[in-house]
Amino acid sequence: MTKKAVVLYSGGLDSTTCLAIARAEGFAPYALSFAYGQRHAVELAKARENAPRMGAIEHLVVDIDLRQIGGSALTAELAVPKGRKIDDSIPVTYVPARNTVFLSFALGWAEVLGAFDIFIGVNALDYSGYPDCRPEYIAAFENLANLATRAAVEKKGTYRLHTPLISLSKGEIIRTGLNLGVDYSHTLSCYDPTAEGLACGACDSCLLRLKGFREAGLQDPINYLPVAEKELEEK
Amino acid sequence: MTKKAVVLYSGGLDSTTCLAIARAEGFAPYALSFAYGQRHAVELAKARENAPRMGAIEHLVVDIDLRQIGGSALTAELAVPKGRKIDDSIPVTYVPARNTVFLSFALGWAEVLGAFDIFIGVNALDYSGYPDCRPEYIAAFENLANLATRAAVEKKGTYRLHTPLISLSKGEIIRTGLNLGVDYSHTLSCYDPTAEGLACGACDSCLLRLKGFREAGLQDPINYLPVAEKELEEK
Repeated sequence: MTKKAVVLYSGGLDSTTCLAIARAEGFAPYALSFAYGQRHAVELAKARENAPRMGAIEHLVVDIDLRQIGGSALTAELAVPKGRKIDDSIPVTYVPARNTVFLSFALGWAEVLGAFDIFIGVNALDYSGYPDCRPEYIAAFENLANLATRAAVEKKGTYRLHTPLISLSKGEIIRTGLNLGVDYSHTLSCYDPTAEGLACGACDSCLLRLKGFREAGLQDPINYLPVAEKELEEK
Repeated sequence: MTKKAVVLYSGGLDSTTCLAIARAEGFAPYALSFAYGQRHAVELAKARENAPRMGAIEHLVVDIDLRQIGGSALTAELAVPKGRKIDDSIPVTYVPARNTVFLSFALGWAEVLGAFDIFIGVNALDYSGYPDCRPEYIAAFENLANLATRAAVEKKGTYRLHTPLISLSKGEIIRTGLNLGVDYSHTLSCYDPTAEGLACGACDSCLLRLKGFREAGLQDPINYLPVAEKELEEK
């Protein structure tokens, strides 16, 4: 029987590649998304559309309103910074404890499904400065998972967190995905897209994505706001 | 300035005592509850009523529907067992990854509030068999918290999980609470109360609570279903 895996899946470039890798490694992927009050809800619509195309056995979208807690430009009434120099500092798009919340739900769902493998597309290289994307954080959650659950305590298996993108550059992620047949025209990464799903081309997430395509020597197949396209040409 | 603490607060006996302890230790308590699709939503109504009375500075109720994930008698369409012999086995009322989900939100809210202290009323003695109530689990979460967050990475403080009830018997918990002025008539612990808020007297939670009051040589001030009262008298 194919082993099940829960894959954290936002519909963006990284998590879509991660889903393709889980499948290529022989897992039956169960995609998990969150409606967490993010500005970029259009990303979620893309995720829903693309999950079956990517071979997800099931796609669960859990409602959790992180706006109730506040504290981030992705959920609160703060402006998403544009054209920021991406360095080691933690940006205002940081959502407090986001990956911890996401992984907690992934763990709960994995336990219900009888899965012991969880994929998360974090990246420690082009990582935009989030503390909960680092290897030491992932190791700590894996340790927690094996203490937190009935399935682990009853020795039915050992939870493993898979982070296949953790040491790849954006360019390498894109090349990996293309080799696995990912069609990136169905993914959206922008933190602040238009209602029609046009990417802004200037937030951290767009800048990293565009840098990735440049590194891979390719053109990003998605549409950007015309003004962003123009600026990109000038660079 | 008084230090803030986030207190996980269900409105039941344990978490209400925990809130009283946080206050007695000099913290400004921020109470956090969850509407997680539990059968015992009447507990939440009691929690809302009682939080200001207990001195909570704020009471946040976060909506998270754990029913979407399933797998527990507390959230799914399974029957809550009655009159069960309470032993070391993990009961069907176990909610997958529940405390991990709850603590993740507590951590996120703590970070937004600038708090570094989180209180959780877990109990390893009369604990009803949940793996995520054990000291080694709590230690693993504390370790995770200090890797997961911007506040910790930027060395603004160190997260500490407080588990003041962890080694107390139910009788000791009740005596501690009474010494701190807790009025237990405003708390409800039952997993399966009536719509009017009458406790069943037969689920694990009721059995542990009633045992606690017996140990403390006291009468539980809340109302039980008449049939339960009768059985109790016969015991």
